[in-house]
Amino acid sequence: MTNPHGTGVTVLGLGAMGSALAAALLDADHETTVWNRTPERAAGLAARGAKPASSIGEAVTAHQLVIACLLDHASVHETLDPVIGRMRGSALVNLTTTTPNEARELATWAAAHGVDYLDGAIMATPPMIGTPAASILYSGSDEVFAATRPVLDRWATSTYDGEDSGLASLFDLAMLSGMYTMFAGFLHGAAMAGSVGVSATEFAARATPFLSAMTAGFAHDAAVIDRGDYTVPGQQSLDFSDLSHIVRASEEQGVDPAPIAAVQVLISRQIAEGHGAEGFARLYESLRADRADLTEVAR
Amino acid sequence: MTNPHGTGVTVLGLGAMGSALAAALLDADHETTVWNRTPERAAGLAARGAKPASSIGEAVTAHQLVIACLLDHASVHETLDPVIGRMRGSALVNLTTTTPNEARELATWAAAHGVDYLDGAIMATPPMIGTPAASILYSGSDEVFAATRPVLDRWATSTYDGEDSGLASLFDLAMLSGMYTMFAGFLHGAAMAGSVGVSATEFAARATPFLSAMTAGFAHDAAVIDRGDYTVPGQQSLDFSDLSHIVRASEEQGVDPAPIAAVQVLISRQIAEGHGAEGFARLYESLRADRADLTEVAR
Repeated sequence: MTNPHGTGVTVLGLGAMGSALAAALLDADHETTVWNRTPERAAGLAARGAKPASSIGEAVTAHQLVIACLLDHASVHETLDPVIGRMRGSALVNLTTTTPNEARELATWAAAHGVDYLDGAIMATPPMIGTPAASILYSGSDEVFAATRPVLDRWATSTYDGEDSGLASLFDLAMLSGMYTMFAGFLHGAAMAGSVGVSATEFAARATPFLSAMTAGFAHDAAVIDRGDYTVPGQQSLDFSDLSHIVRASEEQGVDPAPIAAVQVLISRQIAEGHGAEGFARLYESLRADRADLTEVAR
Repeated sequence: MTNPHGTGVTVLGLGAMGSALAAALLDADHETTVWNRTPERAAGLAARGAKPASSIGEAVTAHQLVIACLLDHASVHETLDPVIGRMRGSALVNLTTTTPNEARELATWAAAHGVDYLDGAIMATPPMIGTPAASILYSGSDEVFAATRPVLDRWATSTYDGEDSGLASLFDLAMLSGMYTMFAGFLHGAAMAGSVGVSATEFAARATPFLSAMTAGFAHDAAVIDRGDYTVPGQQSLDFSDLSHIVRASEEQGVDPAPIAAVQVLISRQIAEGHGAEGFARLYESLRADRADLTEVAR
């Protein structure tokens, strides 16, 4: 093991996810110090060999690699502001869920105190930690990523997205946005089918292969978006994609059309702006009002 | 061929879809009469052997099987109201996109004129007609479905959903609601990734396998919904699914959060009603305000 921070690791925050992370380190025989705001949470891990720190100061000075898995951005500051001055030269890997801008703020704050910062976004549920199904995205210090890789790889497939510490969170939230929106669409469809007595299970049996197959269309839309020309032939037009009949049918069936109505608002906006004959992928433009500037950054 | 309506078929409406349907019948050597509000549209099909009707009256009396593929529910009435009295004993297969209630209204209206009515919902684009990728759902007269099956199967895999003529449209719209909502979620994620210069193609390469794999979760949510108990262990809670940080991150990145914000509204509603500790699938309840009554119908 070539980890310059040694094999010892401190884990801050012992909710379901923090506990799973600490447990995976114990399973791999890492010396693991744990801390939680309410210390009772450490009992189970202590029985498995973890060393509970009696204070946050003791926790962050026990090892040079500190993992934070706390409630939110504010709780990272609440927990570490009093002790960050004692962490100079340490590496902080923050797996707390934050927005990209919050991750960037933490990176700047850590750097000001001589702490190397790596941000991580966990794409897994706690039981998945330590299994091949788990994935964790990282961004920020590439040195910390390289040096702590043997530790990080205990938890999940580790991917490094770049030095901007906001990137891991951004990719994570972008994927989760797609996922939660997809589930809302599924549940809306299930509610429509349910309105005539069809079970959700029967609807899922139809919707699962259908929606799974339809994800193949993402690449097609993406190619149109990247080319920036929504008038190329072979696309389904926005006029054709008008969903008012689905919204109306949902209302007729006593089902709240909220998820599909939100999509229809975006479609209507593009049609009202005179783009009805262009392709459906143009919805992307409905979402990025400031695309011209952003595209400049991108190229 | 045991079709009592003979092999002759009339196709009303020669947009992209109607033309594809007529072309597939010509390819299979069916005698095909075609009609369109603007007759010029028939020229290409006439060159391939179709017989253009000189009037709607001539069209609907040419064969006992009449296919309608018109703009919408209103255009079905506009087209057929003047001639429905001459269609007694015929079969009308309506592939025009309608809501379930509009399909039911048409079935009642057709029955009042002694016309057998079968409603169809096409799950395919015009180029897919006649290929194994196309699927058409039917509901309404089971006799028409059975008798015209040899014709219907020229176009797509034919599925019969039941005697309620609204069912085909309902299933179609429920599936499409899931699909369009999923695409909106993908485009929102792509716009978030795009805000830091990541191409839509790069995002699609990550999102396609991820979202495709996540569709496997539908069956899990469906089982919870059908059991009607959102408190069973092993579910991700609504509190944990709070998406305000995704909405906030979207705004911070200059991306309209509309699709994910619509989902968050549904989540917040359930949390506000005291269900935060229950599973995510409970969003279904946010969509079906009148579930108690509907469940009774279902059992």
